[in-house]
Amino acid sequence: MVFVTRKAHFNAAHRLHNPAKDDDWNASTYGKCNYPNWHGHNYVIEVTVAGEPDPDTGYVIDLGMLMNVIEDKVLEPCDHRNLNTDVPFLSGIIPTSENLVKVFYQELQESVESIAAEGSVLYSVRLFETERNIAEYCPFRQINI
Amino acid sequence: MVFVTRKAHFNAAHRLHNPAKDDDWNASTYGKCNYPNWHGHNYVIEVTVAGEPDPDTGYVIDLGMLMNVIEDKVLEPCDHRNLNTDVPFLSGIIPTSENLVKVFYQELQESVESIAAEGSVLYSVRLFETERNIAEYCPFRQINI
Amino acid sequence: MVFVTRKAHFNAAHRLHNPAKDDDWNASTYGKCNYPNWHGHNYVIEVTVAGEPDPDTGYVIDLGMLMNVIEDKVLEPCDHRNLNTDVPFLSGIIPTSENLVKVFYQELQESVESIAAEGSVLYSVRLFETERNIAEYCPFRQINI
Amino acid sequence: MVFVTRKAHFNAAHRLHNPAKDDDWNASTYGKCNYPNWHGHNYVIEVTVAGEPDPDTGYVIDLGMLMNVIEDKVLEPCDHRNLNTDVPFLSGIIPTSENLVKVFYQELQESVESIAAEGSVLYSVRLFETERNIAEYCPFRQINI
Amino acid sequence: MVFVTRKAHFNAAHRLHNPAKDDDWNASTYGKCNYPNWHGHNYVIEVTVAGEPDPDTGYVIDLGMLMNVIEDKVLEPCDHRNLNTDVPFLSGIIPTSENLVKVFYQELQESVESIAAEGSVLYSVRLFETERNIAEYCPFRQINI
Amino acid sequence: MVFVTRKAHFNAAHRLHNPAKDDDWNASTYGKCNYPNWHGHNYVIEVTVAGEPDPDTGYVIDLGMLMNVIEDKVLEPCDHRNLNTDVPFLSGIIPTSENLVKVFYQELQESVESIAAEGSVLYSVRLFETERNIAEYCPFRQINI
Repeated sequence: MVFVTRKAHFNAAHRLHNPAKDDDWNASTYGKCNYPNWHGHNYVIEVTVAGEPDPDTGYVIDLGMLMNVIEDKVLEPCDHRNLNTDVPFLSGIIPTSENLVKVFYQELQESVESIAAEGSVLYSVRLFETERNIAEYCPFRQINI
Repeated sequence: MVFVTRKAHFNAAHRLHNPAKDDDWNASTYGKCNYPNWHGHNYVIEVTVAGEPDPDTGYVIDLGMLMNVIEDKVLEPCDHRNLNTDVPFLSGIIPTSENLVKVFYQELQESVESIAAEGSVLYSVRLFETERNIAEYCPFRQINI
Repeated sequence: MVFVTRKAHFNAAHRLHNPAKDDDWNASTYGKCNYPNWHGHNYVIEVTVAGEPDPDTGYVIDLGMLMNVIEDKVLEPCDHRNLNTDVPFLSGIIPTSENLVKVFYQELQESVESIAAEGSVLYSVRLFETERNIAEYCPFRQINI
Repeated sequence: MVFVTRKAHFNAAHRLHNPAKDDDWNASTYGKCNYPNWHGHNYVIEVTVAGEPDPDTGYVIDLGMLMNVIEDKVLEPCDHRNLNTDVPFLSGIIPTSENLVKVFYQELQESVESIAAEGSVLYSVRLFETERNIAEYCPFRQINI
Repeated sequence: MVFVTRKAHFNAAHRLHNPAKDDDWNASTYGKCNYPNWHGHNYVIEVTVAGEPDPDTGYVIDLGMLMNVIEDKVLEPCDHRNLNTDVPFLSGIIPTSENLVKVFYQELQESVESIAAEGSVLYSVRLFETERNIAEYCPFRQINI
Repeated sequence: MVFVTRKAHFNAAHRLHNPAKDDDWNASTYGKCNYPNWHGHNYVIEVTVAGEPDPDTGYVIDLGMLMNVIEDKVLEPCDHRNLNTDVPFLSGIIPTSENLVKVFYQELQESVESIAAEGSVLYSVRLFETERNIAEYCPFRQINI
């Protein structure tokens, strides 16, 4: 198995707030991330595809074409946008990094797998909210407790 | 001359918009940076002090004390805030990186110089809006054309 | 499964030396790392928790609370300390990166899992001794040879 | 299981071109990467070994000795070389990152495992062609679809 | 004075060779950098403009427009190219980093200054051949010995 | 003027302590940096030479030869050593970053200038104690207050 990763960037505003809860719950749960007038991040997204290289091209996936899909599915709707108010596929979702990586995975999967070598899968989506805070969704790495 | 630099981080929302101009001017001048619902950045600030090390301490400035000043003067008012609406000392200022470094320099200068070794100066303030976009204010580096 | 990672830093001195062996064995086994008067590193630790986001908060774990645990369990005892002589839970342990990640995992596990979303586990602890030398302990990733 | 990683660097020229295909296929498949007079990269390679630390040394593998193997097997033949024309073990292989990590794994495996703690394995080889384009070969991480 | 910097990337092949000298001189002067079949780098270029922010826009220079100039004058002719054979403005120039920054400065100056705020100058061009090897051309920073 | 920079690394232990002062002064001045049993850092040193490229080689200085001088003058005496007790040229000097860059400049100057292009000077020495704490000595950049 070869794992191929493409990194991309976008800048967005957000705020952590659960509208089903009252202001006290939100303030004590989210602290500074709940401040009313938004804050933002330079998000870094890493998209990893797993598969066997195509014997003709030597590619699991053409990284230029993968970048086009990331642009189309994630950067175009999210870059320089407000993740709470501007992105249709995030409607109703609290934009924690955990929730974002799950939704980005769903948005990317079909298009990514349609351009990858036969038998390849979208393996994981990783998101750096900051250099110190990272979330990753990977449906293939299971924990058996 | 020894130059001592401390790096710090904050996350904020902003939007580039000149209220004295109409919407077309703003959209064509600022492009995506003018989108109405804000976007944001992981800002990195670098504060540089120039001077001679104090003979007793070997310090131009105690970097822990410098960090406290940066916290007090920049991070506390700006972190997880909206630079257009929430920061008193940025009121009326378009929050481009160029304008931010000039204002941060003014906010920091007196407190920084009061805790540095005798004869030291606040040499420069540098701001990374992203890894690729950087602004620096330095009143000591002059260009004679 | 979502994997959430928090990065933190500490600076410490250490020396690789097995007191059960003679000086020649130590010098030839550890080379420069055995020099008698210590050397040190800017250690970077990455702590990863795996689980399902809590439906109310959207968090697998509150990264601010995770940082507090890392501070309490690892940074407070190790930062600006000598790993061979100053840290009770490292007593009798040769401070290679391999040994450190196993011990840090044990120190962190109970506190981390007590504040994570139900069913979450401490997935791995990673330590950068330098940018080029990295160790990771992960009890869930097994190799079947 | 402890995973130990060593990072190394080399600079090389290459070009993506499948000689079994005509020029149009190559130009449309590889784009700029097919330009005739070569281009190049600062490659970063990460070699990861998995095992249990040796009780005497606390090492899964001596990272200095691992670096020597990487130098001998990868850096000496590839550094400042042309990957299409100069490296015997790459003869006949299109130098995509996917193909390179598989070949580097084969070149490294025997020597790396001979100097690692008993029962250790060469777990993976990762290659950064750029900061944004990454490939990894890991025979132990299987996807069951 | 405010200094604004934009970072960009390109990948290219090159070889250090002075055709006016014999092979022995070239081999002993340039070592591995003289190997005949080229090697290459992920070059990082930093372009810095100095000036006063325009009062209407708050910009010394629009960094998006600066990026377009860098694309047009440096990336388009150099990216995925061979710096010894493919770039008209490098003809007859040994592609050391020192020589490259001087030529890039000349190529960029007129276009950059034409889009910057009045009175601004192209202050410097910096090139990272690798993370460890850096050259900068700055006509304004003089050394008086 | 072209400025050429080489980056290098070393790992060392140190402690901030002025033996001419009592323990209370040292504890309150240096805080954690005064802890008795040492701590340490992955130091990064950047050495910059300013000059005109030699017309035959295109080099201000051969960066391989510059690296050899850095190895000889700084890395060999300091790497994996204790900066308070093991380095002859640091005897009697409190190893703050400010003091280190001044001493490293003196140690490097003659050898560096002897191998650089005619008329070149050692322009500056920069030291990263951590990614956030940086000192630079540059005798050519003067502040006129």
